[in-house]
Amino acid sequence: MVNLEQMDWQSYAKKVEDGNTVIMLPVGAIEQHGPHMSMNPDVLIPTAISEGVAKKSDSILVAPAIAYGYKSQVKSGGGNFFPGTTCINGKTLIDVVKDVLVAYARHGNRKFVLVNGHFENSMFLVEGIDLALEHLRHEGIQAQVMLLSYWDYVTQETITTVFPDGFTGWDVEHGGVLETSLMLHLHPDCVDMDKVVHHHPATFPPYDIFPSEPSWVPSSGTLSSARNASEEYGKLLFDVCVDGIYGSVTERFC
Amino acid sequence: MVNLEQMDWQSYAKKVEDGNTVIMLPVGAIEQHGPHMSMNPDVLIPTAISEGVAKKSDSILVAPAIAYGYKSQVKSGGGNFFPGTTCINGKTLIDVVKDVLVAYARHGNRKFVLVNGHFENSMFLVEGIDLALEHLRHEGIQAQVMLLSYWDYVTQETITTVFPDGFTGWDVEHGGVLETSLMLHLHPDCVDMDKVVHHHPATFPPYDIFPSEPSWVPSSGTLSSARNASEEYGKLLFDVCVDGIYGSVTERFC
Amino acid sequence: MVNLEQMDWQSYAKKVEDGNTVIMLPVGAIEQHGPHMSMNPDVLIPTAISEGVAKKSDSILVAPAIAYGYKSQVKSGGGNFFPGTTCINGKTLIDVVKDVLVAYARHGNRKFVLVNGHFENSMFLVEGIDLALEHLRHEGIQAQVMLLSYWDYVTQETITTVFPDGFTGWDVEHGGVLETSLMLHLHPDCVDMDKVVHHHPATFPPYDIFPSEPSWVPSSGTLSSARNASEEYGKLLFDVCVDGIYGSVTERFC
Amino acid sequence: MVNLEQMDWQSYAKKVEDGNTVIMLPVGAIEQHGPHMSMNPDVLIPTAISEGVAKKSDSILVAPAIAYGYKSQVKSGGGNFFPGTTCINGKTLIDVVKDVLVAYARHGNRKFVLVNGHFENSMFLVEGIDLALEHLRHEGIQAQVMLLSYWDYVTQETITTVFPDGFTGWDVEHGGVLETSLMLHLHPDCVDMDKVVHHHPATFPPYDIFPSEPSWVPSSGTLSSARNASEEYGKLLFDVCVDGIYGSVTERFC
Amino acid sequence: MVNLEQMDWQSYAKKVEDGNTVIMLPVGAIEQHGPHMSMNPDVLIPTAISEGVAKKSDSILVAPAIAYGYKSQVKSGGGNFFPGTTCINGKTLIDVVKDVLVAYARHGNRKFVLVNGHFENSMFLVEGIDLALEHLRHEGIQAQVMLLSYWDYVTQETITTVFPDGFTGWDVEHGGVLETSLMLHLHPDCVDMDKVVHHHPATFPPYDIFPSEPSWVPSSGTLSSARNASEEYGKLLFDVCVDGIYGSVTERFC
Amino acid sequence: MVNLEQMDWQSYAKKVEDGNTVIMLPVGAIEQHGPHMSMNPDVLIPTAISEGVAKKSDSILVAPAIAYGYKSQVKSGGGNFFPGTTCINGKTLIDVVKDVLVAYARHGNRKFVLVNGHFENSMFLVEGIDLALEHLRHEGIQAQVMLLSYWDYVTQETITTVFPDGFTGWDVEHGGVLETSLMLHLHPDCVDMDKVVHHHPATFPPYDIFPSEPSWVPSSGTLSSARNASEEYGKLLFDVCVDGIYGSVTERFC
Repeated sequence: MVNLEQMDWQSYAKKVEDGNTVIMLPVGAIEQHGPHMSMNPDVLIPTAISEGVAKKSDSILVAPAIAYGYKSQVKSGGGNFFPGTTCINGKTLIDVVKDVLVAYARHGNRKFVLVNGHFENSMFLVEGIDLALEHLRHEGIQAQVMLLSYWDYVTQETITTVFPDGFTGWDVEHGGVLETSLMLHLHPDCVDMDKVVHHHPATFPPYDIFPSEPSWVPSSGTLSSARNASEEYGKLLFDVCVDGIYGSVTERFC
Repeated sequence: MVNLEQMDWQSYAKKVEDGNTVIMLPVGAIEQHGPHMSMNPDVLIPTAISEGVAKKSDSILVAPAIAYGYKSQVKSGGGNFFPGTTCINGKTLIDVVKDVLVAYARHGNRKFVLVNGHFENSMFLVEGIDLALEHLRHEGIQAQVMLLSYWDYVTQETITTVFPDGFTGWDVEHGGVLETSLMLHLHPDCVDMDKVVHHHPATFPPYDIFPSEPSWVPSSGTLSSARNASEEYGKLLFDVCVDGIYGSVTERFC
Repeated sequence: MVNLEQMDWQSYAKKVEDGNTVIMLPVGAIEQHGPHMSMNPDVLIPTAISEGVAKKSDSILVAPAIAYGYKSQVKSGGGNFFPGTTCINGKTLIDVVKDVLVAYARHGNRKFVLVNGHFENSMFLVEGIDLALEHLRHEGIQAQVMLLSYWDYVTQETITTVFPDGFTGWDVEHGGVLETSLMLHLHPDCVDMDKVVHHHPATFPPYDIFPSEPSWVPSSGTLSSARNASEEYGKLLFDVCVDGIYGSVTERFC
Repeated sequence: MVNLEQMDWQSYAKKVEDGNTVIMLPVGAIEQHGPHMSMNPDVLIPTAISEGVAKKSDSILVAPAIAYGYKSQVKSGGGNFFPGTTCINGKTLIDVVKDVLVAYARHGNRKFVLVNGHFENSMFLVEGIDLALEHLRHEGIQAQVMLLSYWDYVTQETITTVFPDGFTGWDVEHGGVLETSLMLHLHPDCVDMDKVVHHHPATFPPYDIFPSEPSWVPSSGTLSSARNASEEYGKLLFDVCVDGIYGSVTERFC
Repeated sequence: MVNLEQMDWQSYAKKVEDGNTVIMLPVGAIEQHGPHMSMNPDVLIPTAISEGVAKKSDSILVAPAIAYGYKSQVKSGGGNFFPGTTCINGKTLIDVVKDVLVAYARHGNRKFVLVNGHFENSMFLVEGIDLALEHLRHEGIQAQVMLLSYWDYVTQETITTVFPDGFTGWDVEHGGVLETSLMLHLHPDCVDMDKVVHHHPATFPPYDIFPSEPSWVPSSGTLSSARNASEEYGKLLFDVCVDGIYGSVTERFC
Repeated sequence: MVNLEQMDWQSYAKKVEDGNTVIMLPVGAIEQHGPHMSMNPDVLIPTAISEGVAKKSDSILVAPAIAYGYKSQVKSGGGNFFPGTTCINGKTLIDVVKDVLVAYARHGNRKFVLVNGHFENSMFLVEGIDLALEHLRHEGIQAQVMLLSYWDYVTQETITTVFPDGFTGWDVEHGGVLETSLMLHLHPDCVDMDKVVHHHPATFPPYDIFPSEPSWVPSSGTLSSARNASEEYGKLLFDVCVDGIYGSVTERFC
């Protein structure tokens, strides 16, 4: 069993008492991902990857995901104005991350991995981690936190395979081949390939504008086309992420 | 499909555009519930009940739960010092509730039901709701929020059936017959009746003390015995809660 | 002299220097309590009870009350929409409690009793205490805080006497026999029994609704009738609370 | 009756319904004032002055004081390190003032007077007022707030009478002739003239230093000598403040 | 005159009264940039670029820079542990940006450009802008804010010229050719090319680790070598940024 | 070189490593100062004075100023409603001061001087300092902070010289002889004596009113006349401030 919330507390306490267990904490968002997909890939994918990593070791557990993330931005998630995209303030996300890390550390845990599934979360996770570590230091606790976004573990070789026509960057991979393939592999019931809207990758001016301009975003809400997504690619991507992250975690923490 | 995050955004947008859809938002906690049960009943039970309610109507949807709740208290949850009990600050919970409600209201939703599964959350939910409505009013939006804890829908008749030896109050029903029966019905894999520790219901002095005194709490972490829990009771409790809450929701909102 | 603010600082300093003095801090609210009573019983009653307790011992002092409390709720205080009910945000109350406790601890005090007079305050007091103790720990200070609501010290025997026709719970004792009798005993000038509005105890659905519905609340603002209140009951209630609380305080702190 | 909390809510509601009643809100502090005086003059004096003003008009009410104020400073209150001086953070005071003003405005009140009794509070009162008015504007409410410190109403003529040997400024009038005389007039039981420590007015360098240096402050905690204080001066000072403030209030609001 | 703080208020008021003036607000950081450069390029460069843009039009003004920015990160700024790197919390930066935008909007301004000079600031600027616009909407004010980082205006052609040996990304351009060349052009007195430490561009694992590991960062504090920097490149980079940003600003706002 | 941000980090690190360097931090505001002067004297003057002090010693450095300050008040700065006056909330200023002090202390610095140039900042600086020292204590760091407003170093003799017709107090010296003379000495390009509006010093009632009444303030925005300002007076004032502050700093810290 890798999901800590599914353990009874005594089994969990025994498992973590030596402080060597690694706690993986997925952080996602509820955000539209185009007409062909559910609104929870940013939660489900990092959770599944965390579980995949945890299954490879006795000393890794997965914590319940933080499901609500920072406000979707036009250039990376389509923007915060789509119905269904349900985001929280930056300060709130900072506080949630801080509080949750501090709580797990009070159980005796000292090794954490935040697995981010939503591009816009990153800097607020950094700040939540920084404040948590500061707080813990004031309590005499030294902990370590690894922060990663799973897509940064996709190798160049995999990119070449999955994007045979060229790769336009992770930013515009919103609802595109990466996420759709992973969801086809992990939660095929959440994808309907018939509803994929094909379009060229979105391009943007070098600046952002607020309030957002919906006209900048394809009306589908995706930033690149998922037409080439497949379960097979999904498995490939999943495996490369799990393997890579497992490598980092063990190198660093085990 | 009743879980909104499993819908694609266009289906969701169409569903909620008239502002008459009711959004049910489960709020729970990650908290020890004795050696015989997983640490997520406060999330799973209100989520399942919300889904049960939503299945009865076309115009009710369930939002992803807020999984991390307010600090467990000795007299109602055993206390915040048990390994596995993972709680956030009151201000943080207030902010999460506020932000999430505001976000759903921006999609056009005006009718909300917060389904609480963790005793200690209640007043912070009240404040989060109050601040959300205030904020929305400043944006010219009038919304309505119903707040309930599912156990308040257990009828006297059901109490008599489920607690034949007398009922000692919802406070000490922590990890006891109520929650264990519901979990046996909903998630039997999360319960191991062989590990139930039988003890008399916990009794407490009329005050609270901080820092908490672990000696006040049975070492099992439960506040009453789950020995009499059963799947059958679980179904009974589930049905009475679903029916009652559905009644309130339709009376108020439909 | 039991009210610390009436002492000169040198007498106070001498009194508290050994860290064994107990500081009682009443916390109340400015809230309507029906047409027959002033709006300050939630401040005056816990203050008087604290003074009663302090008079029994040389090592107990009463601090100035926190007079403004958390927002009145329909089911326990009539609601926050009555003219005269004057309440502060949850975060503000948390901060006031935290700051005041930290300040008294810096004088050398280590033993505190918060005497709550307003139902809705409770969880925010819990959080204020928790944050204060955390803050003090960061300064190397270990303190202890007892939290109580005075009505929890009314014994079953007293309830039987005071509510001969049956007791419907502390929640609806808003402006009813409990508070009115205590005020008749302590501050008779603040009560006008001729203005008591007699009505059945308020009953409510199992949920709360926001914004509040004034129609749920008797138009008097009371939740149960004060008709049976008397100075004699007030003395009885006062004595049982003072004795009980004094018992807890000495058991725990002296 | 001038103290609004002593009214029943219906009388209060009737009084304030036209929005023309002036609400006076005393704001003080719990702070040492020398070995000869209690620690609450900063609360009692502005409360008494507010009551004095309110007694002159049917359309002025006094609200319960905010008793805990901002941190005492060396040059104006002796400093925050004296036992008994019990102060709250600046942000907390800002929030209390904001919340309380907003709450009174929601009753229909539009005219407020903050009567400050503690030098260090001033700028935090300014900010609390500013945030309250901003918040109220977002709710479509226009209110007006007058802010004053009572000593600013002592006329030159009175100064000449009360300080025949020369006046060294309000800053060092901490526990000196001004406050002691007023307390002798208003609360003689809180003063013991036999314990007055006579010393020259404190003088300070042009800078402040943090952490504070206790050696800068006379060991009595007073910044000037109360030896010349008298009940007669107290009455003079009280009357000139009440008359002056009443003049401002009526000129501005009535 | 393009710097608004150097104008007298009446000239400024006249200039901005029609709401069509564009306010450019540089946001930087005080951060080490290697042994060969001062610690203020993130302030000086966006300020100079803003001034360059403003000089091209009568209806553009530059506001005083926000000089203290978000915590330096290892992979983009070397990390927050270097002496001299002086950074503020994320929430603080959010609040500063929000308050400053709201203040300028109250003067009548409706068009803003935030010119970011410090990679780590970006998401906190997004949030500060979002909260400012929300706040202004509550006051009935509609404003528009453009957000950009100046390096995003360096064209591919310029990159090819300035990085003839290949470009490794803006992240590692910390204290490298980009910033050093710009400073040589704008503030040559702040650069000492003799102190440049030559090294290969820093490479990092795909994750971040907290607390930071100083061993990940070249001991110079730079992430790529400035050896090829030149005043000529600086002029080129400056001109391409000024021209590009001017283009965006006029296209959007003029 | 006295401005630390103009040093490279290694030179700075070497300079401050023994913890004996004094860091001077100017804090100002962007605020109208009449039609004859730019809006930045509150930043430029304390910066110049800090530099003047630092030039007298090898162990004093000047940090980049905090340029945006607390809201201008009618009686000391004309009020927050003038176009060009650009101010931040009190809580924000508290946080900026706190964060910046903590950051400099983490470099090893233990001696700080905050040089205030804007009357309204003072109490928020006090609170920022207090919170910074508290935070640092939690990290085991003891630091000392001197807080001063430069005008408090103008001697009586200088006042007599500069205000031959009588001195009406620093409050109304807003845009008057003090600031104008200093700017004529330090930044003559920011002053246009031809635009000085001559008027009697502003007088005010003993209270403040919110929202502010523009009619209380001379339409020029100045509170006293700058007609008698001169470069010569500016030099005199500058020197007396620099000398006095240098005296305090060395007495206290060197």
